[in-house]
Amino acid sequence: MLQAYDCIMTEMEEVRELFDRELLCDIPLISDLLDHINKFRGKMLRPMLVLLSGQVCGGLQPPHRVIAAVLEMVHMATLVHDDVLDETEIRRRGKTIHSLHGNETAVMLGDLLISRAFHLCSSLDHPGFSRRIAAAANTVCEGELMQLLYRDYYDLEEQRYLDIISRKTAALISCSCYLGAQAADAEEPVCQNLAAYGTHLGIAFQIMDDVVDLTGKETQAGKTLGTDFQKGKITLPGIHLLRICSPEQKRTILTWLDRRTPQDYQEYGKILHESGSIDYARQRAKHYIEQAQQELASLPAGEAHKLLMELAELVV
Amino acid sequence: MLQAYDCIMTEMEEVRELFDRELLCDIPLISDLLDHINKFRGKMLRPMLVLLSGQVCGGLQPPHRVIAAVLEMVHMATLVHDDVLDETEIRRRGKTIHSLHGNETAVMLGDLLISRAFHLCSSLDHPGFSRRIAAAANTVCEGELMQLLYRDYYDLEEQRYLDIISRKTAALISCSCYLGAQAADAEEPVCQNLAAYGTHLGIAFQIMDDVVDLTGKETQAGKTLGTDFQKGKITLPGIHLLRICSPEQKRTILTWLDRRTPQDYQEYGKILHESGSIDYARQRAKHYIEQAQQELASLPAGEAHKLLMELAELVV
Repeated sequence: MLQAYDCIMTEMEEVRELFDRELLCDIPLISDLLDHINKFRGKMLRPMLVLLSGQVCGGLQPPHRVIAAVLEMVHMATLVHDDVLDETEIRRRGKTIHSLHGNETAVMLGDLLISRAFHLCSSLDHPGFSRRIAAAANTVCEGELMQLLYRDYYDLEEQRYLDIISRKTAALISCSCYLGAQAADAEEPVCQNLAAYGTHLGIAFQIMDDVVDLTGKETQAGKTLGTDFQKGKITLPGIHLLRICSPEQKRTILTWLDRRTPQDYQEYGKILHESGSIDYARQRAKHYIEQAQQELASLPAGEAHKLLMELAELVV
Repeated sequence: MLQAYDCIMTEMEEVRELFDRELLCDIPLISDLLDHINKFRGKMLRPMLVLLSGQVCGGLQPPHRVIAAVLEMVHMATLVHDDVLDETEIRRRGKTIHSLHGNETAVMLGDLLISRAFHLCSSLDHPGFSRRIAAAANTVCEGELMQLLYRDYYDLEEQRYLDIISRKTAALISCSCYLGAQAADAEEPVCQNLAAYGTHLGIAFQIMDDVVDLTGKETQAGKTLGTDFQKGKITLPGIHLLRICSPEQKRTILTWLDRRTPQDYQEYGKILHESGSIDYARQRAKHYIEQAQQELASLPAGEAHKLLMELAELVV
């Protein structure tokens, strides 16, 4: 993540405080559960994007902090529910909510986070903000549902894969950027620039996340790897591979994707590298990052602009 | 449910249309899933309460329909997530979402419903409505979490049980009544009357629902019974029983509650009846219904008033 971000440092701290305050609960049992979630707090990418988009468009207003906290809470709720989905045992180098308390608790905890997010959201005067955030949350759900329904489906085309990740990952990131701009009273075309930056950034981010799941080292990523393979979820490298391989290779690969032994996983990983499919996915991610950075071309230079460009670089 | 409700007939139809419209999706796979949810649409108790509360307080305004639809969607989302929680195979005489598509889909579908509910909610001009609905949704989650965390805990006191059901069931019902009044521009004391009517109604409703789980016939209820026993969830009849029984009886009953064979369930049911614990619970429910009806004493007579009184009767 970014090493330093002076231009939004104070505000990021305020976002954290807002977040912490909204997660207080006078019921001790639930308070403990909520404390536990905090250890899984991510790198606050979405709040950072809200604030940086605001800064690059002219300056931060009180709503920025609230929007940032709300979006992070929505994101965190999806992580908690992903726990139910993914059954991953290791997430961010800590026990998951699921493994500690069961599926049902993870579902309800995620629901609690979402309702608190919308509660905080309703404190904003501008109903348009709430509407966009709810629409983005809806898009995330659609993406996740599509992904679930396309499980074990290996004829998945690249366009459909991109559609899925646009919804499940990029929509919320794009919303962060758009609202950051809108809350700074930016003109609509500028808001759209930031939104597009966010969309491209989000797509690149997810492509790379999927690459890491296939190639990464578990300790580095802080989460269980090879889960996509285990869940019958094909991603960009695999889609590319199945597009370029011979019919006989395809038959073999489909056997691995179906059978999913550790040996099959090894073979799959090997051929993904050898065929250039991993490289292909990295190139596509780079392409989206370049597109993201281009969206910032017309925006004022300064620390916020620099950091938005840097964030894009860090993804790849 | 109510046989006829002329004074809100048109508006109830509008609520259904609003609900249907908000559940449209241009993604065919998801559209199918959403269609499926519709078969589980409940008796629309919460919309009925929004509209009746509005009518009894002076008349319906455009926001009433939206508030009603939003609250029904929130309720439906909790039913879908309850599926994940309860793993009941039969719900409302149809297959559950869970048994058809798996836990993960049920989680995401519930999330989709919630985000659409808040999306619709943000179309209301009055941010106060959103805030209350989100607060009520939060209270529901707190109640459900408490219930989960108190599983297999048989020292549960009546006060704690009432606290749990106040949150998980009564809060949303109370919110329906309160907002129905508020959207009709009722004075705050009147809104509070309706809120209290809703709270008492909701508590009575849940007490009776828990009684039915212990005593009812499966085909009548439309859902699997005896689930509370299976899940180590003690309810009012059981709490009463453990309070009045002898120490030796208690040891035996705790063995049944722990072991949970069909035989244990039979014995448990038998002693609940014989000890008068079922009757006790029914009496408590009746008490709350009387309190609910008393809250309506100062409100204008008319069809809406009559129907609100009738609804309370129907619970017991």
